[in-house]
Amino acid sequence: MTDRFHPLAAGSGTAIGLGTGDRVRIRNAHGGQVVDTWAFARPDPAEHLSMEHTRTTLERITLTVGDHLLSSRRNPMLALVEDTSPGVHDTLVAACDPARYASLGARADHPNCADNLRAALRTAGQEVPVIPAPLNLFMNVRWDRDGHLTWLPSPARPGDAVVLEALMPQWLVLSACPMDVNPINGHRPRPVDYQVRTRAPSLS
Amino acid sequence: MTDRFHPLAAGSGTAIGLGTGDRVRIRNAHGGQVVDTWAFARPDPAEHLSMEHTRTTLERITLTVGDHLLSSRRNPMLALVEDTSPGVHDTLVAACDPARYASLGARADHPNCADNLRAALRTAGQEVPVIPAPLNLFMNVRWDRDGHLTWLPSPARPGDAVVLEALMPQWLVLSACPMDVNPINGHRPRPVDYQVRTRAPSLS
Repeated sequence: MTDRFHPLAAGSGTAIGLGTGDRVRIRNAHGGQVVDTWAFARPDPAEHLSMEHTRTTLERITLTVGDHLLSSRRNPMLALVEDTSPGVHDTLVAACDPARYASLGARADHPNCADNLRAALRTAGQEVPVIPAPLNLFMNVRWDRDGHLTWLPSPARPGDAVVLEALMPQWLVLSACPMDVNPINGHRPRPVDYQVRTRAPSLS
Repeated sequence: MTDRFHPLAAGSGTAIGLGTGDRVRIRNAHGGQVVDTWAFARPDPAEHLSMEHTRTTLERITLTVGDHLLSSRRNPMLALVEDTSPGVHDTLVAACDPARYASLGARADHPNCADNLRAALRTAGQEVPVIPAPLNLFMNVRWDRDGHLTWLPSPARPGDAVVLEALMPQWLVLSACPMDVNPINGHRPRPVDYQVRTRAPSLS
């Protein structure tokens, strides 16, 4: 059953409960916006989407359609089943948090993805002791030969979307990244939206 | 006060309690050996050394002498104060675990760094819910322009060493990586050794 598109306000987060086979379309409604993405297994959120396990098995820093993204226990957790964007996503960089904004000269109480994650999970009745490395959808962090990283504007165009399929029951958490101090969101964080397609229609 | 060198047998792990200012010299006694390295804050091990926060602040995949390595709460946790090796260390790849060996065609009960971490922390009376991404000292994983990763033999020479300084009270965990299925340890895991220099001599 395909749901309507739900708005995700600029700089805000949400947790979406998914069963195996459910799909979420994450749409860059206005273009140029990074979406920090995490997944936590249900019922045990100590198993979470892991960028380091995913890179190790894919033997890549990057993602491409058809990839299975792994959990911290190396179980397949999400599949990247569709991507109409230029395919630029980041697996290297930590979520923004108060200390990150302070280090960039902004106020430490700036909205941030780490707090968005915690608040979204709390709404879902979940607590996690640590903030795992996120999958930064649409985020353009470029590496060079010597390993230096450069933060660049997202190349996602208005309407570009990624579809993720849940490969286990989970909480999928999205944060429309509030970063406005470096250029990753073009210095202007924007809303995105998302749509959920459940594998089987409800029988009720 | 400088301690003697302690042997760390091929494929084994250990946890070392450190105070602020204490230093550990990790020596590649025979060359060519990867050492998976973690740090957990005392008294709260939910704060741990984080490769993703370190990369973000350094704006690099790589490490160099003088770098401060950050915790999951973005606090300075370790300083890389000396490195006589070619300086090739990995921040991208997850610790080997039973599922990794199974996926490479080896037995799932192969010795592995994740179990070494758990056992070492248990000896220290600690439990952690997740295995953070390790700092893989002396490990040679090369990236290319397109983000593909290649596992290569460690270029560390016999006697090459790294010195880490604790910037907060912590458990430092080392695992002489038992990987013999890919070439990172030259298909022959070897022992390493380490030496601890405490900041102040004991008054006892």
